[in-house]
Amino acid sequence: MWMSPDPDLPLARRMLDTLRERTADGLGVTRDAYGAGEQCAHDLVRAEALRLGLEVRVDGSGNLYATLPGKDRTRPVRMTGSHLDSVPVGGNFDGAAGVIAGMAVLAGWRAQGYTPEADVTVMGIRAEESTWFPYSYLGSKAAFGLVEPEVLELCRADTGRRLRDHVRDLGLDPDGYGVAALDPARIDRFVELHIEQGPTLVEAGLPVGIVTGIRGSFRYRNMRWLGRYAHSGAVGRKSRSDAVRAAARWMTAIDDAWESLESDGADLVVTVGQLATNPREHAFSKVAGELDCCIDVRSQSVDVLRDYDRIIRECAAEAAQLTATQVQFGPQTGSKPAMMDAGLVALLRGYSDARGLPAMTMASGAGHDAAIFAQQGVPSAMIFVRNEHGSHNPDEAMDLEDFGLGARLLADILASDSSDQNPVRSSV
Amino acid sequence: MWMSPDPDLPLARRMLDTLRERTADGLGVTRDAYGAGEQCAHDLVRAEALRLGLEVRVDGSGNLYATLPGKDRTRPVRMTGSHLDSVPVGGNFDGAAGVIAGMAVLAGWRAQGYTPEADVTVMGIRAEESTWFPYSYLGSKAAFGLVEPEVLELCRADTGRRLRDHVRDLGLDPDGYGVAALDPARIDRFVELHIEQGPTLVEAGLPVGIVTGIRGSFRYRNMRWLGRYAHSGAVGRKSRSDAVRAAARWMTAIDDAWESLESDGADLVVTVGQLATNPREHAFSKVAGELDCCIDVRSQSVDVLRDYDRIIRECAAEAAQLTATQVQFGPQTGSKPAMMDAGLVALLRGYSDARGLPAMTMASGAGHDAAIFAQQGVPSAMIFVRNEHGSHNPDEAMDLEDFGLGARLLADILASDSSDQNPVRSSV
Repeated sequence: MWMSPDPDLPLARRMLDTLRERTADGLGVTRDAYGAGEQCAHDLVRAEALRLGLEVRVDGSGNLYATLPGKDRTRPVRMTGSHLDSVPVGGNFDGAAGVIAGMAVLAGWRAQGYTPEADVTVMGIRAEESTWFPYSYLGSKAAFGLVEPEVLELCRADTGRRLRDHVRDLGLDPDGYGVAALDPARIDRFVELHIEQGPTLVEAGLPVGIVTGIRGSFRYRNMRWLGRYAHSGAVGRKSRSDAVRAAARWMTAIDDAWESLESDGADLVVTVGQLATNPREHAFSKVAGELDCCIDVRSQSVDVLRDYDRIIRECAAEAAQLTATQVQFGPQTGSKPAMMDAGLVALLRGYSDARGLPAMTMASGAGHDAAIFAQQGVPSAMIFVRNEHGSHNPDEAMDLEDFGLGARLLADILASDSSDQNPVRSSV
Repeated sequence: MWMSPDPDLPLARRMLDTLRERTADGLGVTRDAYGAGEQCAHDLVRAEALRLGLEVRVDGSGNLYATLPGKDRTRPVRMTGSHLDSVPVGGNFDGAAGVIAGMAVLAGWRAQGYTPEADVTVMGIRAEESTWFPYSYLGSKAAFGLVEPEVLELCRADTGRRLRDHVRDLGLDPDGYGVAALDPARIDRFVELHIEQGPTLVEAGLPVGIVTGIRGSFRYRNMRWLGRYAHSGAVGRKSRSDAVRAAARWMTAIDDAWESLESDGADLVVTVGQLATNPREHAFSKVAGELDCCIDVRSQSVDVLRDYDRIIRECAAEAAQLTATQVQFGPQTGSKPAMMDAGLVALLRGYSDARGLPAMTMASGAGHDAAIFAQQGVPSAMIFVRNEHGSHNPDEAMDLEDFGLGARLLADILASDSSDQNPVRSSV
């Protein structure tokens, strides 16, 4: 089984350090989608790609492509990459590690004089973190021409400004936004390296994971509980319409339901990650008349998602009735579960065996752009790198040694020739 | 039973309207304690007092006193009044109605040539709403010299600036803050008119209530739940340390405990009126690592307060253990229950009977400055005026006819001569 020349890991380290410095926010890093933080990351990758002599291209939606030409440029391209935005006060590795791993692969090949059979492209994807714009996989969907024109009117959560305006700020023409830049038929494979965002690899003591599938989700990001403001000392229990009490009872009921489904073996994670009474009107001495919250529900099973949606609506109706409040769910957003390509998964296992590199196969709890490639019919795979303290927070801790092992696997699968399609047979 | 000349109700209406206009905030009124809103109310009352030829004085803590001299100025003064601050986005009547009722009484007497036996003073009290400074009854305690010097370092919740600075802004000398301006032995009685802040009078169909006692309270205004931020999709139930889930389970448990105590006949109200995840770090796609909240607990019974304090701490420890989070209660503030003077209560009942005015005796669920006067040994009483939609919100609705009935009772008890001390005997 032929294995690829090594990636340029010192380059990766340098790029990760520079990126951290340039997008630091005091606590962690903030790379706001279609804003200054994300653009800073794009500028860094672009400059490095030009320095390496790669072909650089930006599509109408702001996604970045850096391509090392292959021997036969008519063959379908092999792609890698990930997103370059982060959540607010996030960590340095979530997303960026995948783009920089791709850059390290191409830089290593360049330095060692290796030319791949087909073009290999590293993609820097826009706006994967839907905390900014309420839309899942905005950048990769836009690259495939899958977004409706109305997305330009979506407002960014922090600025309240429309995507149209943020796009224009970056010098892009809103009319070109979402025009298809990728043709699934012209992509041989897409392989995304990403830090694991949960504790599975840490708990298993393994540096690398091979992803079998990606959880889908549904979200209510503008839920509201409406009661009636009242004096906290003078209005008795039975006369109240308390938005906080309503939300608390609802959250406890859906937490019980989650526990019960999980103990029945269902794949499910449930998060109310954001909630607040109205700071303009609340007071410790007022019964709260309003509470806003978000809920995020994920599962690999479409059926579990559908059932739990029904459960949380029933629990909400009960809590509202008990507390004489009203509940509004607001619009639902979300994403479908996606399966990784079985052939690529097997190939990755073959390479990890061949390298004597302990790896485990696992589901991805988080969503990733690879799901969009998979849904477009592109054979897709993901490599997870062990990471402590989870992601979406400043304490992400990926060991660069683990990253190096993941990047080697990435190089292997991007370079693999067709005789390796059944790696078990050809493994050394 | 001799009854007082009528209060000047047109003056009261004019003052209430002017006050509403001048302190409107778009939704309700905001009279920030030791800030521009409260000062605006003080300026209005002061100007009216000077116009009426009353003696005007401001103490070192910024409390305002308007006095109509009596025939015998050596006799202990009879006092009335209330506070002139409001909660943020509050209603027009909470507090101000009591001060303006006193002004209407003195204006009516002036106009009708009536001079009381002893001095009668209307007090405009500072900072009763502890939503601004985390301290109960700040203004009335300061007037009695009951505050420790450190209160000057308390920060106002909205501005984050110290009381010392706010006091200085108003032209007051911080060194004179909290110097006793009132001597309990020199006060014959304190009678406070206030809107009822609960629905009792509305539900009973009665315009006026006579208060028998004031609920005490305890509060934790800086409670924190601390978990660990994590990716909402990638970290499973058992690996989480979710501050929102912890707080929700705690709130549900203490709500159950409240219901159970109340069904056993305990006097108790419990409010979590303010809560929020950290807007700098939360996201719908992150398990929340922090949640801040306040809890306000009130009862007429010191025993119930003590027992419930123990219960909420036990429930918090359980929720924290279940969810692998930590809970911090922070400092406790609060106030003691206070009983009104039985003689004055009987006298008020006598006057309401004498006037054929339907009134009911009732507990006050809310705290009032009258509690401080009572605790200082001043015979104290309160008159509640019916009010719809509760208080601490812009929808307070006090009928001016009901207010007029309350103000008449107030005039009677401020003017009553000593032969009326047992009104049952002397009632007409």
